[in-house]
Amino acid sequence: MNEDENVVDPSHPRYQSLMIRKKIADAGAKGMLADSAMIAHGRGEAFDYLLGEQTIQSAQDATREVAARLVRARKPILSLNGNAIALAGAEFLTVASQLNCPIEINIFYRTPERMGALLGNLKMLNTKLGLDVEILGGVPDARIPGLEGPRGACQSNGIFEADTILVPLEDGDRCEALTAMGKEVLVIDLNPLSRSSRKGTVTVVDEVTRVASNLIQMIPQKPSVTEWNNDQALLAALNHISSTITNKFQ
Amino acid sequence: MNEDENVVDPSHPRYQSLMIRKKIADAGAKGMLADSAMIAHGRGEAFDYLLGEQTIQSAQDATREVAARLVRARKPILSLNGNAIALAGAEFLTVASQLNCPIEINIFYRTPERMGALLGNLKMLNTKLGLDVEILGGVPDARIPGLEGPRGACQSNGIFEADTILVPLEDGDRCEALTAMGKEVLVIDLNPLSRSSRKGTVTVVDEVTRVASNLIQMIPQKPSVTEWNNDQALLAALNHISSTITNKFQ
Repeated sequence: MNEDENVVDPSHPRYQSLMIRKKIADAGAKGMLADSAMIAHGRGEAFDYLLGEQTIQSAQDATREVAARLVRARKPILSLNGNAIALAGAEFLTVASQLNCPIEINIFYRTPERMGALLGNLKMLNTKLGLDVEILGGVPDARIPGLEGPRGACQSNGIFEADTILVPLEDGDRCEALTAMGKEVLVIDLNPLSRSSRKGTVTVVDEVTRVASNLIQMIPQKPSVTEWNNDQALLAALNHISSTITNKFQ
Repeated sequence: MNEDENVVDPSHPRYQSLMIRKKIADAGAKGMLADSAMIAHGRGEAFDYLLGEQTIQSAQDATREVAARLVRARKPILSLNGNAIALAGAEFLTVASQLNCPIEINIFYRTPERMGALLGNLKMLNTKLGLDVEILGGVPDARIPGLEGPRGACQSNGIFEADTILVPLEDGDRCEALTAMGKEVLVIDLNPLSRSSRKGTVTVVDEVTRVASNLIQMIPQKPSVTEWNNDQALLAALNHISSTITNKFQ
C-alpha cells in the first residue's frame, strides 16, 4: 500500500468505512492476515453499505441478546480470527475482561507466522490496556469434530470446553460444527444470508467494531436472556437492505 | 497467500467465484495491484452473490448496447485498471483487436512498479495471443480536466481524444470527469448504486470476465445502437437483487 492509499480525508462521506478499511490494510502489512482477508473485508463493506453503515434496530436488539447470553454463560469464550483482531482487538479484550473469560485465536488459514503476529498483537494490546486477559490458540490440543486439518484445531481449556462462544466473521463450516457440539454460538456477520448467520443461535448483522463497542456498553447492564427468534432478526436485516436499495436509487 | 488458500475444489458451489478470486490473488502477488484492489474485489463479490453470479437479462441487453456503441465509435478506447487486467486482460485484448482500438492502462494508485507490471502483463498476453493491440498509459502527456494528481493523467492519443470509452470497474470521480468531457462512457460495475453506474452512458451490471466474454461474441454481430434508458437497466438490476435476497432466505 503506497502513501496515496493511506490518506483518508475526514470530509469523505464514507470516512468511517475508509478508516476501518485502513485497519485491515495496516494489519495485512504486519503479516496478521491472509490475502483472502482483504477480499472478505470487501464483501463485508458491500453489505455494510447496503445497511447504511449503521447499527439497525434489529442488530441493536441482537447485540443486547448476545451480551445477555455471554453474561449468563457458565464458560464463555471469544473466538477471534485475523480480521476481528485487526478491526477490534482492543475492544474484544475489554469485553473478555468484563466477562472474565479467555480469547482464543482461531484462524482459517493457520500459519505459524500469522498465529505469532496475532498473538503478539493481542498481548501488546493487553499490556497497553492494563488488562490480563488469557489469550489461547497458540497450542491447540483438541479438535472440533467434523472439521478437517488445521481448521478444526482448538484448545481443550478454550473453545472445546466453552458452552457459549462469540464468533465474529466466522466461516460457515466452523459455525455449523460448533453448533453441532451443542454450544450456544453467537455470530457477528454483515451478510444476513451467510451460513454463519443462518446457523448461529443469535446473529448480529452489523459491523464488528460497532458491535464490540456496543457490547462494552451493554455487558455491565447485565441484560436478561429472552426467547430469541433469530430468523426474525435476519429477516429484519434483509428488509432493511431491500429498503436501502430502493431509497438509494432516488 | 499460502498453498492452502490456493486450492479451489471444483465441486464447491461457488467454484467460478473462487477461481475469479484466485486471479486477483495471483495478480496481487505479481505486484499488479494496490492492496485496496482486493477489498474492491470483495465488494464486487458481494454484489455478484446478490445477482446470483449470473448475467441477468438487463445486463445482457446492456452488453449488446455497449458492443453497438463501441462498433459505432469513431475513436473508441478500453481504459483498464489493475483488477480489469488481472481478471480479463486476455479477453479485453481480444475485444480491442476486434475493434482495432488501443487499450490505455489507467490506474487509481499509480506507481512506476505497478504500471510496469501491468504493461508487462498485457504485452506478454498480446504476444501469447498473436495480437498487435496498442497499449497506452505508460507515458501520460494529457490530463482529464477536474481530476487532481496522477489520477487525471492520460495520453493525448488515447483516453484524451477518444469519443467512446469502456471503463470496467472505474472510480466514480473519474467516471464523472470523463462524462463531463462529452465522451460516451460505457461502464462495467457490479454495484448498480455506485456513482460510476449512475453516471455512465450505458452501465453493464455484471462480472467483468462474463462481460468481456459476451462482448467477444457480440462485437462481430455489429449490433445497432438503440435509445438506451440507463436508469431502467439499473432498476432492473436492483429489482433482481431484491428478489434474490428474498429467494435466498427460504
